[in-house]
Amino acid sequence: MNSCAPQLLEHPKPLPSAFAPAAPVSRCRELAVGVIGPGRVGSALLDQLRAAQPRLQREGRVRLRLCGVVASKRMWLDCDDAELNSRHGGAQVWRPNDLDAFAAHVRGVEPRDALLIDCSASDAVASRYPAWLAAGLHVVTPNKLAGSGALERWQAIRAASAASGARFRYEATVCAGLPVVQTLRDLLDTGDELIAAEGMFSGTLAWLCNRHDGSRPFSALVHEAHALGYTEPDPRDDLSGMDVARKLVILAREAGWALSLDDVAVESLVPAALASLSRDDFLERMEELDAPMAARLAEARAEGGVLRHVAHLDARGRASVRLAVLPADHAFAHSRLTDNVVQFTTRRYCDNPLLVQGPGAGPEVTAAGIFADLLRIAESLEVRA
Amino acid sequence: MNSCAPQLLEHPKPLPSAFAPAAPVSRCRELAVGVIGPGRVGSALLDQLRAAQPRLQREGRVRLRLCGVVASKRMWLDCDDAELNSRHGGAQVWRPNDLDAFAAHVRGVEPRDALLIDCSASDAVASRYPAWLAAGLHVVTPNKLAGSGALERWQAIRAASAASGARFRYEATVCAGLPVVQTLRDLLDTGDELIAAEGMFSGTLAWLCNRHDGSRPFSALVHEAHALGYTEPDPRDDLSGMDVARKLVILAREAGWALSLDDVAVESLVPAALASLSRDDFLERMEELDAPMAARLAEARAEGGVLRHVAHLDARGRASVRLAVLPADHAFAHSRLTDNVVQFTTRRYCDNPLLVQGPGAGPEVTAAGIFADLLRIAESLEVRA
Repeated sequence: MNSCAPQLLEHPKPLPSAFAPAAPVSRCRELAVGVIGPGRVGSALLDQLRAAQPRLQREGRVRLRLCGVVASKRMWLDCDDAELNSRHGGAQVWRPNDLDAFAAHVRGVEPRDALLIDCSASDAVASRYPAWLAAGLHVVTPNKLAGSGALERWQAIRAASAASGARFRYEATVCAGLPVVQTLRDLLDTGDELIAAEGMFSGTLAWLCNRHDGSRPFSALVHEAHALGYTEPDPRDDLSGMDVARKLVILAREAGWALSLDDVAVESLVPAALASLSRDDFLERMEELDAPMAARLAEARAEGGVLRHVAHLDARGRASVRLAVLPADHAFAHSRLTDNVVQFTTRRYCDNPLLVQGPGAGPEVTAAGIFADLLRIAESLEVRA
Repeated sequence: MNSCAPQLLEHPKPLPSAFAPAAPVSRCRELAVGVIGPGRVGSALLDQLRAAQPRLQREGRVRLRLCGVVASKRMWLDCDDAELNSRHGGAQVWRPNDLDAFAAHVRGVEPRDALLIDCSASDAVASRYPAWLAAGLHVVTPNKLAGSGALERWQAIRAASAASGARFRYEATVCAGLPVVQTLRDLLDTGDELIAAEGMFSGTLAWLCNRHDGSRPFSALVHEAHALGYTEPDPRDDLSGMDVARKLVILAREAGWALSLDDVAVESLVPAALASLSRDDFLERMEELDAPMAARLAEARAEGGVLRHVAHLDARGRASVRLAVLPADHAFAHSRLTDNVVQFTTRRYCDNPLLVQGPGAGPEVTAAGIFADLLRIAESLEVRA
C-alpha cells in the first residue's frame, strides 16, 4: 500500500526527452528541473509534467526545462557536457558522488531558477538538501527522511532555505497528494494555532483495521493485503507504525514543534519475537499476530467501540501512533477502506476540526502532490527578461 | 449559520490605524491593501492582518500597507487626500461612486502591488472587478456574486485578469476557510480531471437534516436554528438552496464548465405558497413545512437510508441541489452537526474521492480563507527595490 515510498529503480522506459519547447512566450517564468529517482513516482511525475507543459506555457505560468534525470545506475542530462561525459567515459554511468555534479548541472552557469525533485527514498540524497538550498536550488520531495530524520539536519535545511530564499516543499511526504501540509501551513500562516493533529496516515493499516471484524484471523488479512500489493514487500514496514510516525514528525515540525522520531510513542503491531526475523521467516510465523490482535478487537467491542490505528499529536508535546478504541460514531470509524484521514484541531477549528480524507498513496497522486509544490514555487519566481 | 455572507456594516470600532511599520527589511515584497466592507468578516480579517503583520515582515515574506477601508457610509484612507476630502467636506462620507476613487487611492500613483479585498455582499462592488483587474489591482473576495452571477461578467473578470496579470482569488466563497477552491485548482493544474463534485455546502441545512429524526417537527428545528443564529435572518435564504447553488456554480466554473445559476436544478425546501410572504408571516406559517418534510423522512427510512441536503455536479453537465436519500454508511451520513463536506471525484481519485470536511462558516475562518488568498498573491509578487 505504501506506494508513496518511492524506490530508486532503473528507468524502465527509454530515457526521457526534454519537454518539447512550445511557441516562445515573452516574459514567462522559467524553471530548470532535475529529477532524482525515476521510479514509479518519478516516472509518473515526468509523465504529468510532460503532459502539462504546453498548457502551462500557453497560460504564461511557467516554462519548465527538464535538465536531467538521475537513476540508481545512470544519469541522463539534457546536454553534452564534455567534462561530465569524460568523467564517465561517455557512458553516463551514475555514481553516488555524481549527485552534486548533477545539481550543478541543473543549477546552470548563468543565473536561473532551478529545482531538484528528490523521488528517491535515499538518506544520502536528503543529506544534500542543505547544500543545494544554500546554493539557491529549490528542493521538492516526497522523501520523508529529511522531514522526519535528525533534527539538526532539518534545522540546517530550514536555515539554508531562509538564507538563500530557495524553497523546500514536501506536501507529498504526508498522505501523498492530499492537501495536508499546505493546509496546516495556511492555518498557521493566517494566525491560527494548532491544538492537535490526528489521523490514520496509513492506508494499509486502515484497510487492515477496517477488515478486521473477527471473521478471519488478522494474519490472513495481512497475507491478503500483501498479495494485493497493499503492503510494503516486508509487511513489517507497515505494521511497525514507523512510517506513520515519520508523517507525524513532519506535521509536528511544520507546526514549529521540535519533535523527533524518538519522541513518538509508537506501538508496533509486530511482536518483539518476530521483529528481527528474516522476511520469509516472518511471513511464515505471522499467525503469532492473531491472538494479540483478536484480544484487542474483543476489548474494543466490549467497550462498544471500534479498533483503529491512530496517530495523535498535540500542543502539549504528546505524540503517539497506536491501536486505539474509538466510539462507533467517530469520524475515523467510517472511513472508506484504504483512505487516509487527517484532522486538525486548532484555535479556530476547535469544536469541529478540519478534516481531509482520501487515498494517501499511489504513484499518480503522489506525483500530483509534488507537481503542486512545483507550481507553488513557479508562481513565486521572478519573471526574467 | 451562513455567516460567511458578509454584510456592509458601520465599522463598530474606531477606524483602524495603518499597520505599524516594523524595522525596515531590505528587499521585502510590499502589498498595498484596501478593504471594502468592514462587517463581521472584514473586521475579523483586519484583526488577523494586524496581528500577523510583524511576523510576516520579520520572515521577509510581505510588508502589508493598509491604505483604506470602505464601510457603507464612510471611508477611511491612510493619507490626507485633499481632493477626496474636499469632495466630502472632510467628513469622509462614503458614496457608492467613490469606490473607484478608493480603488485609485489603493492602487497609488507610483507603480506598486495593490489588492482590493471585497468583504461586501454587494453586486455593485462585484461589477467593478473587471475594471479593477484590468487596471492591475488584485482582487480577493468571499463575495459569491461574481463567481455565481452572470457568465459574461465572470468571463470579463477572467479576461481582465489574464490580460493584466492581476490575480482574482475567492477561496472563501465556498465553505469559508476550508481548502476547497485551491484543492480543486491544484487537481486540475496538475492534469487531473474532475468527474464529479458533491457535498453538503450549507452548515445550516446539514444541522437541520442531522437533527431531523422525527422526534420534533421540522419547523421547530428551524425555529431553534433561527434563535441560535444558525440561519440567515430570513431562514428562507438557507432553505431555498440558492446559496448552496451559488457555491456549486463557482466550483463548476473553476473546473472550466460554463455553468450558470439557472442551470442548477434547485429543490427549495420552502413551499411555493410561503415563498413570497413577508418574513414574519413566513415564520408564523412555518409549520406548513412539517408535513412534506416528515413524508420525505419516512421515505428515506423506508429505504433504510438517511435524508441529507446534497449538492451535485458532474462532467456530464448535471448540477443539482436537493434533498437526497443516502445509504446509512455514506460519508455524508456521519458528518458532525454543522459541518460542510466537499468531495471531488476525479480521474485520479476515482474509487475513493478526495474529501474535505469542517465548519464552513463564521467570521474568523472566512477571514482566514481570504488571508490565505492574500498570502498566495503576496508570494507571487516581484520583489521591488
